[in-house]
Amino acid sequence: MAPKLPNDLYAQVVLSGPGSFLAKQLGIPQPETLRRYRPGDPPLAGPLLIGGEGRIAEPMRAALAEDYDLVGNNLGGRWADRFGGLLFDATGITTPAGLKALHDFFTPLLRNVGPSGRIVVVGTTPEDTDSADERIAQRALEGFTRSLGKEMQRGATVSLVYLSPAAKPAATGLESTLRFLLSAKSAYVDGQVFYVGAADSTAPADWDKPLDGKVAIVTGAARGIGATIAEVFARDGAKVVCIDMAAPEGAPDALGETATKVGGTALALDVTADDAVQRITDHLLEHHGGKADILVNNAGITRDKLLANMDDARWDAVIAVNLLAPQRLTEGLVDSGVLGAGGRVIGLSSMAGIAGNRGQTNYAATKAGMIGLTEALAPKLAEKDITINAVAPGFIETKMTEAIPFATREVGRRMNSLFQGGQPVDVAEAIAYFAGPASNAVTANTIRVCGQAMLGA
Amino acid sequence: MAPKLPNDLYAQVVLSGPGSFLAKQLGIPQPETLRRYRPGDPPLAGPLLIGGEGRIAEPMRAALAEDYDLVGNNLGGRWADRFGGLLFDATGITTPAGLKALHDFFTPLLRNVGPSGRIVVVGTTPEDTDSADERIAQRALEGFTRSLGKEMQRGATVSLVYLSPAAKPAATGLESTLRFLLSAKSAYVDGQVFYVGAADSTAPADWDKPLDGKVAIVTGAARGIGATIAEVFARDGAKVVCIDMAAPEGAPDALGETATKVGGTALALDVTADDAVQRITDHLLEHHGGKADILVNNAGITRDKLLANMDDARWDAVIAVNLLAPQRLTEGLVDSGVLGAGGRVIGLSSMAGIAGNRGQTNYAATKAGMIGLTEALAPKLAEKDITINAVAPGFIETKMTEAIPFATREVGRRMNSLFQGGQPVDVAEAIAYFAGPASNAVTANTIRVCGQAMLGA
Repeated sequence: MAPKLPNDLYAQVVLSGPGSFLAKQLGIPQPETLRRYRPGDPPLAGPLLIGGEGRIAEPMRAALAEDYDLVGNNLGGRWADRFGGLLFDATGITTPAGLKALHDFFTPLLRNVGPSGRIVVVGTTPEDTDSADERIAQRALEGFTRSLGKEMQRGATVSLVYLSPAAKPAATGLESTLRFLLSAKSAYVDGQVFYVGAADSTAPADWDKPLDGKVAIVTGAARGIGATIAEVFARDGAKVVCIDMAAPEGAPDALGETATKVGGTALALDVTADDAVQRITDHLLEHHGGKADILVNNAGITRDKLLANMDDARWDAVIAVNLLAPQRLTEGLVDSGVLGAGGRVIGLSSMAGIAGNRGQTNYAATKAGMIGLTEALAPKLAEKDITINAVAPGFIETKMTEAIPFATREVGRRMNSLFQGGQPVDVAEAIAYFAGPASNAVTANTIRVCGQAMLGA
Repeated sequence: MAPKLPNDLYAQVVLSGPGSFLAKQLGIPQPETLRRYRPGDPPLAGPLLIGGEGRIAEPMRAALAEDYDLVGNNLGGRWADRFGGLLFDATGITTPAGLKALHDFFTPLLRNVGPSGRIVVVGTTPEDTDSADERIAQRALEGFTRSLGKEMQRGATVSLVYLSPAAKPAATGLESTLRFLLSAKSAYVDGQVFYVGAADSTAPADWDKPLDGKVAIVTGAARGIGATIAEVFARDGAKVVCIDMAAPEGAPDALGETATKVGGTALALDVTADDAVQRITDHLLEHHGGKADILVNNAGITRDKLLANMDDARWDAVIAVNLLAPQRLTEGLVDSGVLGAGGRVIGLSSMAGIAGNRGQTNYAATKAGMIGLTEALAPKLAEKDITINAVAPGFIETKMTEAIPFATREVGRRMNSLFQGGQPVDVAEAIAYFAGPASNAVTANTIRVCGQAMLGA
């Protein structure tokens, strides 16, 4: 069985069943060209305004001052015609009535948020609050931010970050998440909720080379999103072990090409093989000193069929590649110590794993299982100072989605708050954020990279 | 400020922003006429097959044998041409590889599931499992069942129930949930996940009069979904205190009419009034012996506006009616003991509170806050043997949705696995299930009544 490109087939959601009738629609909105990361560019397209009264506004002002054009809050200081970003500290909201602070802060500012602007609200993890009042108010932020994400136009995005109440006032563990969200790297992350734990963190020597000196394993790296992950990791300073199936006799060596392009090493391997962990370990010993810092379980396949018509082979293959192999690789490399303290594990989930998808009971089970894997292993891995997170791509523009008929593709790529499909690099940037050493307070998250797709559960 | 009909405005999701272009579509699928509850009818349209190997199959066979036409499992016994329901005990699945049991059980049976058939999978609450293997496998069930929900046709539904591993083998606390899901009362509940705790339970004297002798408070009861809740409660044996704003001078007394119709009492009251709790308490003393068993926080309003244009009044009114009042009524009636042991609190959330909605930052904040209220108060209320849950309606056919232009309404009502809008009674049935004395193991749930709407977060 051949691990293929990660295949989200998000389009099938709108293609099939109740969505099929949508294909023949008219009047498609025009999307904004999203600002994306280029080395040397400022993180935001304009100044950043930090507001709200809580425990993170001041420490984050200090942390971000060097790299951001900070402007005064709405009580004074310079006002911007076009904000590049708004960061609101909602950790001080401890009652439902206190939610009014959101209205007070945002309403006069929203017209001044520029194209590809970033709005980030930081609250306190609701289930870890002390009082019912605070928990209710904090939980309400989710409805607020998701709605605001649907109101913002021209490529502006809205994110909510829940910070553990145990985080110390300096809250340095929050910084990597804010730097990701307040940058062009999160261009296609919209309407999502991030959970950040209490751990403190140290900034990397260079925020533009956060993976400097790290060794990263990427499965399914020959092409598509996997290859892009390898490229972004290399850009950020990592050495990448590119893993994929061996190319068939006479076919181009896509895996070798990716590895060469990113200055990494290639390992032809079926991730479901009994000796997969051993072969990766041997490869690391031979080429990278025997250790790895990052594992991305990206390899995945689809074998779609209605459950009523599904044969054993379809079920078994998808479970083996998409769920059993990621679990075995993760547990194997962690248990042996190849992936040790400071380690990062990132898995590919899917919209289908969240919302379900017609014809994909097998695939959706594995992609929901990937969320389970993330949540299940997080506590044990935390004891070893290793984090584990997952990304769930929405409609990403790949060769796969290129093959979808035009009208249907248009519906699939437009049914989100940004009116467009994402790029493979958008998925890779989110993975690189999770992989960064400064993200050690970020674990057990599953984040959609979907432009705030309207579809969900 | 006037508490109006509960106003979900789910249609706006597809009306506005990225959804607006969907309105002009063609080729709408034909929906099945859903089988709904009528006293005296059998709970299912055909026989019930119970399969799977875990801790609940045998106890539930025993519990359901009297009222259901049970047929043998696929290893023997009578086979049905048209099953009315399939109940699969997945609590025995403790590894990802073990998920194969789902394929083995369902694939040969699915063609024989009849119209309005019910498929229910019972698993173990993932976060409460002992091993990572089990947690991953159990979490995978969600992707499986949500996908299967999108595959089933002709009004058949699929539900997932997670039972606490602490539930004793007899698991009698599970029965009320299974009886709801394996009946015509859950006609419009599809693709949802229920959490059932460890508490045991006692069956009511009559499953067709589960609220016999109970006193229920319903806010916003004059019309719409609130009036239907009152009617269903009365049908199930409860005395209903119908609360709503006093009708304006000269207007028909809708509240009085509802109260008369259901044989209950009417209390004209603004739920945001300072003395609301006292006035309810006085009313209960005068008419119902001073106690209540059930509180439904149904009253709600909308004041839609983009946040950039939203005035203080719109923000304040929605927060006051939809969030502050429900919290005050709940805490007030519980703290005073008016709502005591065996009590039930049910709140109305909304799709907007889950997914966000353009023009509804205020409303969505309150409806996400209602989820927070449910989760925040559940532990404290559990100490007093009181449960609290919420329902989030999808597209429900009401006078409100009747006013939506035809093409748009068609999109809104068809973007779900049942290809149709729900009826107010569908929301009321879910609330009555939560309100039942046998549902004492069911708390902190927020359940969508949406026909498995494609939209979400």
